[in-house]
Amino acid sequence: MTTTTPLTPEQLDRIDAYWRACNYLAVGMIYLRDNPLLREPLKPEHIKQRLLGHWGASPGLSFMYVHLNRIIRERDQDAIFLAGPGHGAPGVLAPVYLEGAYSEIYPNKSEDEEGLKAFFKQFSFPGGIGSHCTPETPGSIHEGGELGYSISHAFGAAFDNPDLLVAVAVGDGEAETGPLATSWHSSKFLNPIRDGAVLPILHLNGYKINNPTLLSRIPDEELASLMRGYGWTPHFVAGDDPLTLHQTMAATLDACHDQIRAIQQQARESGEATRAHWPMIVLRTPKGWTGPSEVDGHKVEGFWRAHQVPLSGMHDNPAHLKQLEDWMRSYRPEELFDAQGRLIPELKALAPQGTKRMSASPHANGGLLRRALRMPDFRDYAIRVDKPGTARAMNTKPTGALLRDVMLKNMDNFRVFGPDENTSNKLDAVYEVSKKLWLCDYRPEDADGGELSPDGRVLEMLSEHTLEGWYEGYVLTGRHGFFATYEAFVHVIDSMYNQHAKWLSICEDIPWRARISSLNLLITSTVWRQDHNGFTHQDPGFLDVVVNKNPEVTRIYLPPDVNTLLSTVNHCLQSRDDINVIVADKQSHLQYLDMDAAIKHCTKGIGIWDWASNDQGAEPDVVMAGCGDIPTKEALAATALLREHFPDIKIRFINVVDLFKLQPAGEHPHGLSDADFDSLFTKDRPIIFNFHGYPWLIHRLAYRRTNHKNLHVRGYKEKGNINTPLELAINNEIDRFSLAIDVINRVPRLQVAGAHVKEKLRDQQIECRNYAYEHGIDKPDVDEWVWPF
Amino acid sequence: MTTTTPLTPEQLDRIDAYWRACNYLAVGMIYLRDNPLLREPLKPEHIKQRLLGHWGASPGLSFMYVHLNRIIRERDQDAIFLAGPGHGAPGVLAPVYLEGAYSEIYPNKSEDEEGLKAFFKQFSFPGGIGSHCTPETPGSIHEGGELGYSISHAFGAAFDNPDLLVAVAVGDGEAETGPLATSWHSSKFLNPIRDGAVLPILHLNGYKINNPTLLSRIPDEELASLMRGYGWTPHFVAGDDPLTLHQTMAATLDACHDQIRAIQQQARESGEATRAHWPMIVLRTPKGWTGPSEVDGHKVEGFWRAHQVPLSGMHDNPAHLKQLEDWMRSYRPEELFDAQGRLIPELKALAPQGTKRMSASPHANGGLLRRALRMPDFRDYAIRVDKPGTARAMNTKPTGALLRDVMLKNMDNFRVFGPDENTSNKLDAVYEVSKKLWLCDYRPEDADGGELSPDGRVLEMLSEHTLEGWYEGYVLTGRHGFFATYEAFVHVIDSMYNQHAKWLSICEDIPWRARISSLNLLITSTVWRQDHNGFTHQDPGFLDVVVNKNPEVTRIYLPPDVNTLLSTVNHCLQSRDDINVIVADKQSHLQYLDMDAAIKHCTKGIGIWDWASNDQGAEPDVVMAGCGDIPTKEALAATALLREHFPDIKIRFINVVDLFKLQPAGEHPHGLSDADFDSLFTKDRPIIFNFHGYPWLIHRLAYRRTNHKNLHVRGYKEKGNINTPLELAINNEIDRFSLAIDVINRVPRLQVAGAHVKEKLRDQQIECRNYAYEHGIDKPDVDEWVWPF
Repeated sequence: MTTTTPLTPEQLDRIDAYWRACNYLAVGMIYLRDNPLLREPLKPEHIKQRLLGHWGASPGLSFMYVHLNRIIRERDQDAIFLAGPGHGAPGVLAPVYLEGAYSEIYPNKSEDEEGLKAFFKQFSFPGGIGSHCTPETPGSIHEGGELGYSISHAFGAAFDNPDLLVAVAVGDGEAETGPLATSWHSSKFLNPIRDGAVLPILHLNGYKINNPTLLSRIPDEELASLMRGYGWTPHFVAGDDPLTLHQTMAATLDACHDQIRAIQQQARESGEATRAHWPMIVLRTPKGWTGPSEVDGHKVEGFWRAHQVPLSGMHDNPAHLKQLEDWMRSYRPEELFDAQGRLIPELKALAPQGTKRMSASPHANGGLLRRALRMPDFRDYAIRVDKPGTARAMNTKPTGALLRDVMLKNMDNFRVFGPDENTSNKLDAVYEVSKKLWLCDYRPEDADGGELSPDGRVLEMLSEHTLEGWYEGYVLTGRHGFFATYEAFVHVIDSMYNQHAKWLSICEDIPWRARISSLNLLITSTVWRQDHNGFTHQDPGFLDVVVNKNPEVTRIYLPPDVNTLLSTVNHCLQSRDDINVIVADKQSHLQYLDMDAAIKHCTKGIGIWDWASNDQGAEPDVVMAGCGDIPTKEALAATALLREHFPDIKIRFINVVDLFKLQPAGEHPHGLSDADFDSLFTKDRPIIFNFHGYPWLIHRLAYRRTNHKNLHVRGYKEKGNINTPLELAINNEIDRFSLAIDVINRVPRLQVAGAHVKEKLRDQQIECRNYAYEHGIDKPDVDEWVWPF
Repeated sequence: MTTTTPLTPEQLDRIDAYWRACNYLAVGMIYLRDNPLLREPLKPEHIKQRLLGHWGASPGLSFMYVHLNRIIRERDQDAIFLAGPGHGAPGVLAPVYLEGAYSEIYPNKSEDEEGLKAFFKQFSFPGGIGSHCTPETPGSIHEGGELGYSISHAFGAAFDNPDLLVAVAVGDGEAETGPLATSWHSSKFLNPIRDGAVLPILHLNGYKINNPTLLSRIPDEELASLMRGYGWTPHFVAGDDPLTLHQTMAATLDACHDQIRAIQQQARESGEATRAHWPMIVLRTPKGWTGPSEVDGHKVEGFWRAHQVPLSGMHDNPAHLKQLEDWMRSYRPEELFDAQGRLIPELKALAPQGTKRMSASPHANGGLLRRALRMPDFRDYAIRVDKPGTARAMNTKPTGALLRDVMLKNMDNFRVFGPDENTSNKLDAVYEVSKKLWLCDYRPEDADGGELSPDGRVLEMLSEHTLEGWYEGYVLTGRHGFFATYEAFVHVIDSMYNQHAKWLSICEDIPWRARISSLNLLITSTVWRQDHNGFTHQDPGFLDVVVNKNPEVTRIYLPPDVNTLLSTVNHCLQSRDDINVIVADKQSHLQYLDMDAAIKHCTKGIGIWDWASNDQGAEPDVVMAGCGDIPTKEALAATALLREHFPDIKIRFINVVDLFKLQPAGEHPHGLSDADFDSLFTKDRPIIFNFHGYPWLIHRLAYRRTNHKNLHVRGYKEKGNINTPLELAINNEIDRFSLAIDVINRVPRLQVAGAHVKEKLRDQQIECRNYAYEHGIDKPDVDEWVWPF
């Protein structure tokens, strides 16, 4: 079927011309602010004053793009393109512009000389666009700024898109990162019946900023072995002669596409999904291909010196200016563009039409395709709470049932992600309707609780990076999901969170980007319940990372019980353009609110719990606040202790679900007005705030509030080891005894009368610790404490 | 040389007995609080009330350990052992105890029945030790709590330790993580002449918490291809019959050790270091090997159900109690321990002696081997500063020269790490004495500025994870280093920072752990100079992660110029047991302090710059503070603007180098007393604090200070794109104009007179922005501003 020279001479000529046009544009973007078509000799004033951009990766990216265009047209294939080396954006922006999508969205960058001039000037220029495949780039769902996530993003896009081909350029620099190195295993999670295909093109251009890359300097057979070991079928395309390489690339793409179709056809016709050894391409071309081969006696093309701007000093180095002009003219722009500055029609015809263009695919503007989730009524999963603070339940378990039914109603556009912990996290109800995806070998024992299936929609792999990347790719292409993970190890993906938040933040200002589903992260197995994992598993600091990003896209919730968690998850699953971080432990906890109360409480996000307060009709002596499941329980227990010891003390009890309520209204869209904050927390009474995370975070949010000087926060402060829950609470002073002592210290009229109570409380702490040391468990009467009033 | 059955029947018998003793101990640790030698039938009261620990990985880890012991003894090999699956600690603690090291360090855990009982009880028990290979474990340099770093730690230990063998167990769960997946490439950086060897044992026990692992469910030939592709020579050991497997493992270890010696000998005799295809072992044994094969009708041995505690409910399930007793007796403890409860001498003889024991190797308590660096005089690298704020220099460049000479004086125990950015970061002087290590293929052009060498001591790979892991392993084994990286992407290793900080934090309380070198992280290519990389490269939030960890081990410095950076680096390189985070941009910046002043300023960590202040002898109208290079410059420029517009305004100028000076003395060892803080920042004057990072961090550190209510902080607040430095500053309001406006707004007597000045300043901002939009660079007069007084 395929030949080694599939292109006719005319096709070859045209595809090369199209590619020359791309390369011409890439150079133009980096250098020119005027004279975009070289209608006159190049002069210093045509050159940008500051030269920024990455030439090195650009020609290779365009090369892939134009060849993919041929496949799309000839084979009527839907495709999108992800550029791992996103800093080679000129190599993507050029073909995007040439196929017209750019001008459609940005009319000032029209397809004529004036538009081209504006297109060149704006690149990597203040007030213009970035030098990566930023959200402003039509067709991009992957910025490529922080390296490592191109393949996992690509797989996320391919899941449940059976007709889509996701081509992904992987830089050989990026290939050295950990997240990328393990993401090759993603093919073990691609179901050839219901999912689309991912075609990675590993681009060995040989160099990073000024080093060779590892994979470009090992023998081909070693690299082939690596790729086969990862489960792929590698195809090599290598050389530096464009005309030869066009034929090889075309033939290889034909072969890969044949192979992809064959795998899909076989699976779809047989109805049997098995793991496939999908094709991938190793493309070895010179860095800065077709650029200056030497500058000032130094090798440039095919060397790291081609990484960024190969020629500089144009304003006072006429030889360089001449070299630049020769370089640009080597692409023969006069043959490529007509008098108006438009690509000539014969070349224009090489691009696909309409939404078949990768730059105009709705998959790369996923909000266009997004269908809202069909939601069950979350109230149906409520547990009964007759009296607050007296019964116990596992907080995440009913959410598992909710997720199960969300899954059932949305079996084509909802997935659950987790690093091998969904059962441990008590979300296992979801397996009743969809199991864990597994396409590798099966063993007989797997039937016994293994919950594996080739068409499972729960994705588990011990790589937070890969899961997060899949999930991002999935929502960016218009679908929905839910990710549950260990609190301490969500730091593994801090930087991915940062990058996704930045992407969303930029999208807020791009009107043509349709809104996508929020990313929902359930942070569980939290710091306060690491009974045997100990110190290394105690870290609530992800929230400190979260709060630094744009308030328009960041949300943090700490629902304290089953019904508030259900209400929160219900809200988050339907929200758009945010990152929702939900903190909730998986163990058995006291339950506080029935569903009606939970909905009311979550809608406000923060509120007084009347049943736990006794300051009705008066200013309280103290405000006790809890945020998070265990801190809330301990704060309640402290409240009870205080009321037992000091029957006339007036305590107001506040619970915080929506953390950003604490921030001023001007700083976060969820922030309370100062008046509302003051009416809750008073203007002058002591506040004891028991927090799930590092205590300073509360000060960071609330330092502008009237009563901040009386705000006293307890939280985790790195005092841990192997501890029972209560002992850990005591070490970090978030326990009921410490909190009660805090109140006594801060309420003036208790300070004398309270001395002996404090002593008693301290004795109780010691007793609790001794019990734990003796028995290895917490004192049952403390552990099983319930709200007594 | 090697045979397939190298063990004599007697050796086989003994090695199996030793392994049984290990397994017996592992089970004992998980279950028993009494009756440690089963001298009487097992009763419920002998069992711990809460059963914690991971049985699954333990027998495999012990299996490796006892076989490594044979190699150490027979071949007089120095070795240490790293357990990637550190949660299988019982499998490591058992042989550590049996070879006596444990009792030497912890006399209460003596080698007799009483000691054994205490040893069992403390495991994963409050007040006892964790269930990972925590710092309390003799011989451990790798906790194994957060997965992914075992191989990179192992290589760090092997660098510059030519006689050391570092055996590293890699769990097949861990193998799915990104950091681990790329760390296999570490062998491309191991010089067989000067470095030791790393022997990875990939342990395919098949399962994570309740999933199969990917690598255990692909065909052997595919896995072998993967390992060969990574550059290793794989050896497979697989089965479930202990006696057979002992022979296979022994033969395989012999073969691997022969191969290692041959590689080393060949390189060392020829003097030619090339990349070797080092041996590694794939060990496929059942999860929970030798444990219960079934519990309550469910398969356990060889299945995920063996992951943690395979049998539970012993207190009220006599059948389970019986099964546990049968299981423990299957190891025949009566044959292994003598009447006192000591391992019998024939078995004892299998362990190496003294410091040859992996549990007693000084390499695993690196501070014992640490030699202080021989330091050049950092003052010799000073630049001349005749008048503060008038000349420019690249801040990191002289530090490159300092590092060069540190390298030269310490060519056997100092290394520099960086992800392909040391040249870009202007530290390239170091290449004058030691190049980038490169053992893969060479090309002719490499001679032209490639700076590659097989014996280079600068390690560059595009994986922050791998570099950080190498560096940690290197300092944990008693050496020194320096790591420079991009500010935005240091978030990639947030979690590694957290884990290392926790390790150091625990070590503070372990008297036998000798002090090791601090980890030195230079954060450069900072947020304020991302002229073409844009928004994704702007993130100063690593500091927010840093401050959450134990103050005893965390340090943050923001030296504003060349000489303060030199003084800071000089201090950090000689410090111990800390993590030093140094933030300094690599570009050309104004210089403020000559070396004498820099030393004085850095020694205090914070101080008034008299030359920039005019409040001498009076309370100032306002305190202007700068922290970080660019924020300091803008704060100075604002000061100058204000003094030009309001000649009688009194401004005190403070610069902060040591960020923790801002925290109260009780909270951080570097913290200023309140009195000192007040004397600097006044008790009631407005403070305008211009900060390098997210502004809230300053509030988090200083919220307890007297004058906090008047503290007004500017910093990065996610307002970025493609910007010139000044435009970025303006967007985030850290620029001179915004700061001057801030002062006018906050100094009461300026508020009327200042109205027209504010307008003028705003016009200047607009002018600057327009200039940038027009020319792509900053207005030269603003960019080239110098201190005018």
